[in-house]
Amino acid sequence: MKRVLLTVEYDGTAYCGWQIQENGPSVQQEIQKALRRATGAQVSVTGASRTDAGVHARGQRAHFDTQATIPPEKYPYVLNTLLPRDIRVRAARETPPDFHARFDARGKIYTYRIHNHAHADALQRNMRAHVPGQLCDAAMREAAGLLVGTHDFRAFAAAGGSAKTTVRCVRDAALLRAGDDLTLLVHGTAFLYNMVRIIAGTLIAVGQGRLSPDCVQTAFQTGDRLCLGPTAPAHGLELTRVYYALDGDEAARFDLVLAACKGDVL
Amino acid sequence: MKRVLLTVEYDGTAYCGWQIQENGPSVQQEIQKALRRATGAQVSVTGASRTDAGVHARGQRAHFDTQATIPPEKYPYVLNTLLPRDIRVRAARETPPDFHARFDARGKIYTYRIHNHAHADALQRNMRAHVPGQLCDAAMREAAGLLVGTHDFRAFAAAGGSAKTTVRCVRDAALLRAGDDLTLLVHGTAFLYNMVRIIAGTLIAVGQGRLSPDCVQTAFQTGDRLCLGPTAPAHGLELTRVYYALDGDEAARFDLVLAACKGDVL
Repeated sequence: MKRVLLTVEYDGTAYCGWQIQENGPSVQQEIQKALRRATGAQVSVTGASRTDAGVHARGQRAHFDTQATIPPEKYPYVLNTLLPRDIRVRAARETPPDFHARFDARGKIYTYRIHNHAHADALQRNMRAHVPGQLCDAAMREAAGLLVGTHDFRAFAAAGGSAKTTVRCVRDAALLRAGDDLTLLVHGTAFLYNMVRIIAGTLIAVGQGRLSPDCVQTAFQTGDRLCLGPTAPAHGLELTRVYYALDGDEAARFDLVLAACKGDVL
Repeated sequence: MKRVLLTVEYDGTAYCGWQIQENGPSVQQEIQKALRRATGAQVSVTGASRTDAGVHARGQRAHFDTQATIPPEKYPYVLNTLLPRDIRVRAARETPPDFHARFDARGKIYTYRIHNHAHADALQRNMRAHVPGQLCDAAMREAAGLLVGTHDFRAFAAAGGSAKTTVRCVRDAALLRAGDDLTLLVHGTAFLYNMVRIIAGTLIAVGQGRLSPDCVQTAFQTGDRLCLGPTAPAHGLELTRVYYALDGDEAARFDLVLAACKGDVL
């Protein structure tokens, strides 16, 4: 028996989310179907994060156990011939048998994308939330900076979460602008349900002048969801990276993700 | 009667191309349908470029004549409520009555996008051609450099074109890399049928070491299509900009498009 860890990329537009649900196709289900065809056995896949309907991933991670003789590093090639084009397995490796994709995660990086123009973006319409009207980047950056640190994020959680504690550590937050496109990157050890979408919705409201940047501090102090902006649309969100101790120290480097995002590597 | 010039952006995935055809929906048809609903009259729209099935546009331009009293700058707002989400009118202006979107074009910039990784890109699968295996950027840049200038591009034209002369001027060509993503930008006064896709396919073959960069010069000398690489897939291509004298000098500045493109990876 081997435990295998996949890195999975998907366009969430056509799915009801990561997790198997009765109301539509899920990414987890598609991967389990492909694994069944590849290995001949029923396989259960455990994802690091249960992304919502419409949310995308560049770096979802998921583990499964198998008795198949396929070398672990061959899984991307095998599965990509069986998966729909909007789901790609980008990497795979064997892990110790007690590794867990969800519980062993050391940190995650999310990206939230906004198209800030009078008219929506036809080409990236499923990848960027459309926000017309002027946004003040400086105010948004001020609010983003206040998020960094260990705080009680209970005001930033949607109902329906199952977390025992609402204290979380946001390690880094950055807002980049390239013309009409704004990109928010948030790096944390763990996140509450809808936390990044509430952060994005709050930053948008701050950028519009409807909230002051210090609403973030008020929300930490009071725990009041109503201090913050609305939950931003799912399709702007991407799970960019999940990392573990077994990935090595470089995987946790926010500066490298930021540089790649800026196109500095060009 | 007013002549109005639109700037149109579209995801070409669902269309048989710009031009009205019997075998499927076209972008031109969708815009004419929306204009009919907006103005109450049958309107014929003339595009700058007849993009093929699957080809995208950021900056297609198209003109039409109308007796409607809608102020020209309001057309984006009016039409975007009537158009499908994969087509957006981004700008509009009135032109002199003798202006022509196709014949008055001073230059065009095309973008060709490649995802150079063992596995395809799930999120940008309809925007980037997938090329697995190593590509030598330096060889590709050498070939791209040889394209610049006024040459007989007849080897770079697919059958079916109707051009009187095959002499064209490529003003600039640049190849950018950001990680696994390669972006080719080509700026010219005018292009032959499939010219940019043949350029892209040739650069890919050069990058793979299957052709030498000087195949470009041989093709200029002999006019032989067989000196060059295959026509690269339509979905990697985007019509990025079409400009006219009435746009002013800045519209012709390739350096500005290049700078914006470097932030395109956000």
